[in-house]
Amino acid sequence: MDINGSRLEEHIYTLAEIGKIGETGVRRLAHSKEDRQAVDLVKRWMEEAGLETRIDCFGNLIGTIEGKKKEKPNLMLGSHIDSQPYGGRFDGTAGALGAIEVIHSLKDKGITPNRTIEVVCFSDEEGSRFNKGVFGVRALIGQLEEGELERQDKNGMSRLEALKEFGVTPDVTQSPVYQPGDIEAFLELHIEQGPVLESQEKPVGIVSAISGPLWLTVTLEGFAGHAGSVPMNLRQDALVGASTIIREFNELVKNEGTLNTVGTVGSLQNFPNSRNIIPEKVEFTIDLRDIDMEARNRLETRLYEIIKSTCSELNLTYSLSEDTRSDPRYCADWIKDIMREEDEKLGYHSPTLMSGPFHDALFMSYISDYGMIFVRCEKGISHNPLEFAEMEDIQKGVELLYQTAVKIAQS
Amino acid sequence: MDINGSRLEEHIYTLAEIGKIGETGVRRLAHSKEDRQAVDLVKRWMEEAGLETRIDCFGNLIGTIEGKKKEKPNLMLGSHIDSQPYGGRFDGTAGALGAIEVIHSLKDKGITPNRTIEVVCFSDEEGSRFNKGVFGVRALIGQLEEGELERQDKNGMSRLEALKEFGVTPDVTQSPVYQPGDIEAFLELHIEQGPVLESQEKPVGIVSAISGPLWLTVTLEGFAGHAGSVPMNLRQDALVGASTIIREFNELVKNEGTLNTVGTVGSLQNFPNSRNIIPEKVEFTIDLRDIDMEARNRLETRLYEIIKSTCSELNLTYSLSEDTRSDPRYCADWIKDIMREEDEKLGYHSPTLMSGPFHDALFMSYISDYGMIFVRCEKGISHNPLEFAEMEDIQKGVELLYQTAVKIAQS
Repeated sequence: MDINGSRLEEHIYTLAEIGKIGETGVRRLAHSKEDRQAVDLVKRWMEEAGLETRIDCFGNLIGTIEGKKKEKPNLMLGSHIDSQPYGGRFDGTAGALGAIEVIHSLKDKGITPNRTIEVVCFSDEEGSRFNKGVFGVRALIGQLEEGELERQDKNGMSRLEALKEFGVTPDVTQSPVYQPGDIEAFLELHIEQGPVLESQEKPVGIVSAISGPLWLTVTLEGFAGHAGSVPMNLRQDALVGASTIIREFNELVKNEGTLNTVGTVGSLQNFPNSRNIIPEKVEFTIDLRDIDMEARNRLETRLYEIIKSTCSELNLTYSLSEDTRSDPRYCADWIKDIMREEDEKLGYHSPTLMSGPFHDALFMSYISDYGMIFVRCEKGISHNPLEFAEMEDIQKGVELLYQTAVKIAQS
Repeated sequence: MDINGSRLEEHIYTLAEIGKIGETGVRRLAHSKEDRQAVDLVKRWMEEAGLETRIDCFGNLIGTIEGKKKEKPNLMLGSHIDSQPYGGRFDGTAGALGAIEVIHSLKDKGITPNRTIEVVCFSDEEGSRFNKGVFGVRALIGQLEEGELERQDKNGMSRLEALKEFGVTPDVTQSPVYQPGDIEAFLELHIEQGPVLESQEKPVGIVSAISGPLWLTVTLEGFAGHAGSVPMNLRQDALVGASTIIREFNELVKNEGTLNTVGTVGSLQNFPNSRNIIPEKVEFTIDLRDIDMEARNRLETRLYEIIKSTCSELNLTYSLSEDTRSDPRYCADWIKDIMREEDEKLGYHSPTLMSGPFHDALFMSYISDYGMIFVRCEKGISHNPLEFAEMEDIQKGVELLYQTAVKIAQS
């Protein structure tokens, strides 16, 4: 291997000590004290790797190594080091520390890149603190929204205040930092957060696209009544309605979707949620994803038919709200080609797979070509202290990241 | 009419002022300040009706009028005047104040009953404060449980302390107060809390039985995962499992139950309940009722088959807990016969119907024959400020209660 696997391992486990919960958990909320501690530590590692560092006014940690040919667009590598409130040790960090390892290995070998390379630890990818994530990357590319700094965490602290406490003074006029054309390619390594590589017994995967989700909220309304006294034929039970839709939606995606389609009802609120009262109102979410937009659109239409016919059957009313409608973002063919070539040399035989979850890379795709590498993780568990990836798999993934980065940097 | 309808109306609306919330709501939690105020007011009305009153050490308000023949077992009438936290004006009070009106009307007519009659406002029928109700009636018949006085409300106040604050010193050795044989008949009038009388356009109904519920909690466990990254065929989605069971259970009760069977899933908890995480665990309640025990048992068995086959299909595990298994309690034929006779004289043509909800009468049935009269209520709404019954319907119901009581008292 060209990278230093044991240094990478040491960095990953050292970083996992900051905000540690239990034996294997991590809690490093965006802009928090723990987040700042982590940024300071990783900044030192960046400097040891030969990068010149800065923390920008949005909390992004950026390291730069100048290339011989400054006129060429940069190569950018990165991921994030913040975590979910009850998160694991590998989500984000494997890619962020892997990117630094790539640069450190270049330095070890005395290689000066042709292009300038930047490594970014994007701030607040997770989004759980202010209920809106990928903040840092959106700031860099100019996708901040109105009122973004006024969003509050559950203690009533605004993002503005939190960033000041973190040690920076945000200034939205600084966004965007990068324009289309500034960056030749963005590369991100991440744990898969899914079970596909594990089920195929492969340590590493090459990502084809990130499938943007369609997110809906469905609200059904019926009529409450005492569970003991309303005859079945007079009921308007909203939970029976929701149950019918949830079951049929699942069947629909399984039977009429592509191999890549996934459809999920993750969240459900039932009112009044009392054991002897017929449910009056149920609100539930729909998450529908595919990289094949035609397939997703077809299933969306079928879902509306299911909702309509169920409500008509059960004498319910319904309303729909569209929370997010993202398009899939495809990885650049030329980057995937390089990855496949290097993968072959390394003898990994890595499969190609799509990403259901989004990543910082999804946003970088709006100003740059991008490529992603996935690393197998146990049972697909993520956002949880049980999250686990074999160090050997991470090392293999970072080795592929290194070879790909070298190819692009020297091109 | 033999009763004084306008006095009854005045009492019902005057009582509704105590603990009033909004225009039509009532909050009189058991043993609370408002409950005590209500008990004091109703006690005065009892005395005006000619009853000798006492508040027992369990918070029950009991009024007695001595009969000419003291050796005969008593006739008892009653219901409750406590309410749900966000309750209405008629649940309990229509029956409690109706019972007092019966006695007051006897007095107006100068009738002295042959049997001693007692009117009871049972304490804490609703059970919402200490999460266990029908306290007063259970104390009277000797069905208190271990630790009953130590149960705490959500502010940490025990029932013992609450009853002391209410003004009595509970003494469990005083329970039971009544033995089988002490009471010839117990009569309770109550709003229906269901839509059957309304759908049949009848003001009053004669109750055949109170169907005891079977209460179960079903827990399904699958496996969490990111909604975007776990292919459909690798999922173990607990909410899809629960939805399948809820839908099939509803179909089962509708298609294979009797006309009286009702089956409800009223409460459901979904974990982790996040829009982009596949549900790992779902817990939901089953409420299954019928006065035909054979039918209920058959459906219970079929439900277990549905749960088993669904979990096997979806690769889930499950556990069941039995929270309550009550038998139906049938109204005495001889009391129903008197009611039907009097009903015919009054020209009501009241239908016979079962009670899904339980009432104080359910517990009285363990030491006495009993009968119940239902009064139509709007849309079956109860336990809610929207609860409404026409005063004319209540008056008709109380008139039937009066005629029935006179027949039994003089027999």
